[in-house]
Amino acid sequence: MVVTPEPGPGPVGILGGMTFADQALLAKDASRTLATLNRATKDAALHAMADALAAAASVVLEANARDVAAARASGTSDSLVDRLTLTPARIAGMVDGLRSLAGLPDPVGDVVRGWTNANGVRVRQVRVPLGVVGIIYEARPNVTADAGGICLKSGNAALLRGSSSAINSNLAVTAALQDGLAAVALPREAVQLVEGGREVTAEMMAARGLVDVLIPRGGAGLINAVVEGSKVPVIETGTGNCHLYVDASADQEMAIQIMLNAKVQRPSVCNSLETLLVHAEIAPVFMPKALAALAAAEVTVHGTPAVVAYSDIVVPADEAEFEGEYLSLDLACDIVDSIDSALAHIRRYTTGHSETIITDDRRAAERFVAEVDAAAVLVNASSRFVDGGEFGFGAEIGISTQKLHARGPMALPEMTSTKYVIDGAGQIR
Amino acid sequence: MVVTPEPGPGPVGILGGMTFADQALLAKDASRTLATLNRATKDAALHAMADALAAAASVVLEANARDVAAARASGTSDSLVDRLTLTPARIAGMVDGLRSLAGLPDPVGDVVRGWTNANGVRVRQVRVPLGVVGIIYEARPNVTADAGGICLKSGNAALLRGSSSAINSNLAVTAALQDGLAAVALPREAVQLVEGGREVTAEMMAARGLVDVLIPRGGAGLINAVVEGSKVPVIETGTGNCHLYVDASADQEMAIQIMLNAKVQRPSVCNSLETLLVHAEIAPVFMPKALAALAAAEVTVHGTPAVVAYSDIVVPADEAEFEGEYLSLDLACDIVDSIDSALAHIRRYTTGHSETIITDDRRAAERFVAEVDAAAVLVNASSRFVDGGEFGFGAEIGISTQKLHARGPMALPEMTSTKYVIDGAGQIR
Repeated sequence: MVVTPEPGPGPVGILGGMTFADQALLAKDASRTLATLNRATKDAALHAMADALAAAASVVLEANARDVAAARASGTSDSLVDRLTLTPARIAGMVDGLRSLAGLPDPVGDVVRGWTNANGVRVRQVRVPLGVVGIIYEARPNVTADAGGICLKSGNAALLRGSSSAINSNLAVTAALQDGLAAVALPREAVQLVEGGREVTAEMMAARGLVDVLIPRGGAGLINAVVEGSKVPVIETGTGNCHLYVDASADQEMAIQIMLNAKVQRPSVCNSLETLLVHAEIAPVFMPKALAALAAAEVTVHGTPAVVAYSDIVVPADEAEFEGEYLSLDLACDIVDSIDSALAHIRRYTTGHSETIITDDRRAAERFVAEVDAAAVLVNASSRFVDGGEFGFGAEIGISTQKLHARGPMALPEMTSTKYVIDGAGQIR
Repeated sequence: MVVTPEPGPGPVGILGGMTFADQALLAKDASRTLATLNRATKDAALHAMADALAAAASVVLEANARDVAAARASGTSDSLVDRLTLTPARIAGMVDGLRSLAGLPDPVGDVVRGWTNANGVRVRQVRVPLGVVGIIYEARPNVTADAGGICLKSGNAALLRGSSSAINSNLAVTAALQDGLAAVALPREAVQLVEGGREVTAEMMAARGLVDVLIPRGGAGLINAVVEGSKVPVIETGTGNCHLYVDASADQEMAIQIMLNAKVQRPSVCNSLETLLVHAEIAPVFMPKALAALAAAEVTVHGTPAVVAYSDIVVPADEAEFEGEYLSLDLACDIVDSIDSALAHIRRYTTGHSETIITDDRRAAERFVAEVDAAAVLVNASSRFVDGGEFGFGAEIGISTQKLHARGPMALPEMTSTKYVIDGAGQIR
């Protein structure tokens, strides 16, 4: 289906000086419509949104160019400018993303479990949308389309709070998405951009009863601020201080390949490797090979004195380097005298994302899996596999590092709640 | 197995002037032990806790008598004193509750789903304990044993924050539970009582990273204070402003029986009926019968003018009466001109607990089920069935009225999180 939408009145909330509370009430109304849509209607909407975004590509690129120019003028770093920048290929990626969501199963209406009581009362636990989902994110305009699409497919109204540095891009993308919604007679208010200063973020975090869940996507600072400040339930995503522990029994060649892949393939993401821990027993053989491979891959190793002893290309690491994410071609490293020491190190510094052991020892693998408290625990595989796409989910709104509701890659089912539907014929207690 | 424990050193945290942070760290340590226990060990612990509590019955009763005397001296209401009071039968109920937990399946280790990727990487999503669970509750000393037992069975350490009015009872119960744990060589710190003034509750709510989840159990005031003030993730339980909508097509006799059951069988609980909505079309026939039945059951009806018109025994209701829970033999009532009006009323006043329609009309039932946003939606059955026991769960820590993590009656599986365990043979991306 190709929809050529009429140019719309522009994104809801922008014109007319709407307050956040106005927008949230409109989202709540829209969420009631969305909750009862069948899959075919939602898929048609996703294709219409994709069509509208494709049709608006030049408008979006022009808006984005203004954001990029402003960012450069204010001295924004190259890596941030890169994330902010849209290209025809990136817009095509957003369009494809919306279409591929249309191809995924709809979790809403799934019966999670059900039974019949002794008295004949029938109980079903059925998936339902969460309602109104607030997403707070940084300067990646592609998130606007991705998150809006995932919310729509899962039957949720989206309140998208992007970065002010991407405001023109986000406005243009949101207008296109809303034109797509309108083309299939769905409410524009189903996907809204939330604008304004920091006080608007505070309003979102206080909107208990209007916003059903907040999902911050971005750096540790943003996530902490939302987790600590919000009265609305939050799903914490993303920071990954991921460890790789090379056990005494490890296949050393395998360890080096997995180490390189986890560190180098895409260092800026949350499932990339940040700390290498090597059992002292194999360190004399393993460390020279590992350090050479890392140097060849242009990785700077930051080590404790025990690591520095292996090579003067190792930079002495201070304590703080074991605490955070580099998100770059840097790697913290220590030698440990036992799996217990490795587990203690991970317990102290983990952000609960993805932790890996390389071992051929069954007991070591089992202890590591049982004792490490993280969203994902890997044996002899790269932590880069901890990803909604790699899991075959087809979509990902983020990787939850909290224990409530969802833990690990979050896809469409994680964007739902459940409702008990109870059918009787007059039964009483 | 009958364990006759040695008298222990008294509850952890009481002696030695331990701070909340000390207790939480001990709980975190204990949670690591609990997470790796198999079911048999946990079941043995539950029986040992039951044995120790039974053996300590006279000590617990004596401690409880001091609490009750203090409560009466300070003019506490009869209903609160009733909740505070323990009897030999109530202690036996707590002991039986611990033993019955031992008979329930252990959710920890359950594989929720799993698959093998195209590259041979095997992924399993496995249930794991939440870690450290904080329960904040009011003056019911039986919760101390129930919540402690549920946490233990689900592999979680418990930080129990009871009411100061039940402090002697809670200390005695906790000491017995800890003696039971010690009798099977498990850490006493697995079940701890948290004492102190309001500042300790504030510390619990701020203990992000040490406490994994907080569950408030009690009245709306307590729950709101925790939900709004906590930086630790919260599971909101319990307030139930439950509605019964009698549709134009209802079987009127069925409607009266369900109305009476939901209102009268146990008015003080969250799944009891608080508001009756009657379709105008059947009101002339239904209302006289309903009002007579309610009067015979000693229920006071608080109605809008349309309801008052049916009988002068109806007390005029003000707006506020439709907002809250009576939790007593009182019922708010209105006449509505359509199912749309009923849905709008429920949308406005629901606390998202349990909402019921009585109807023989398939379309009305389907609309009600689809459009009402609540943990449970019932057709032709009493809302009193929305209960962990009635659902066959065997245990219940509360009824969640939030949408994240768990919604509706929460039992052992709802006291767990999951972890992805990923097994490879050297795969990289």
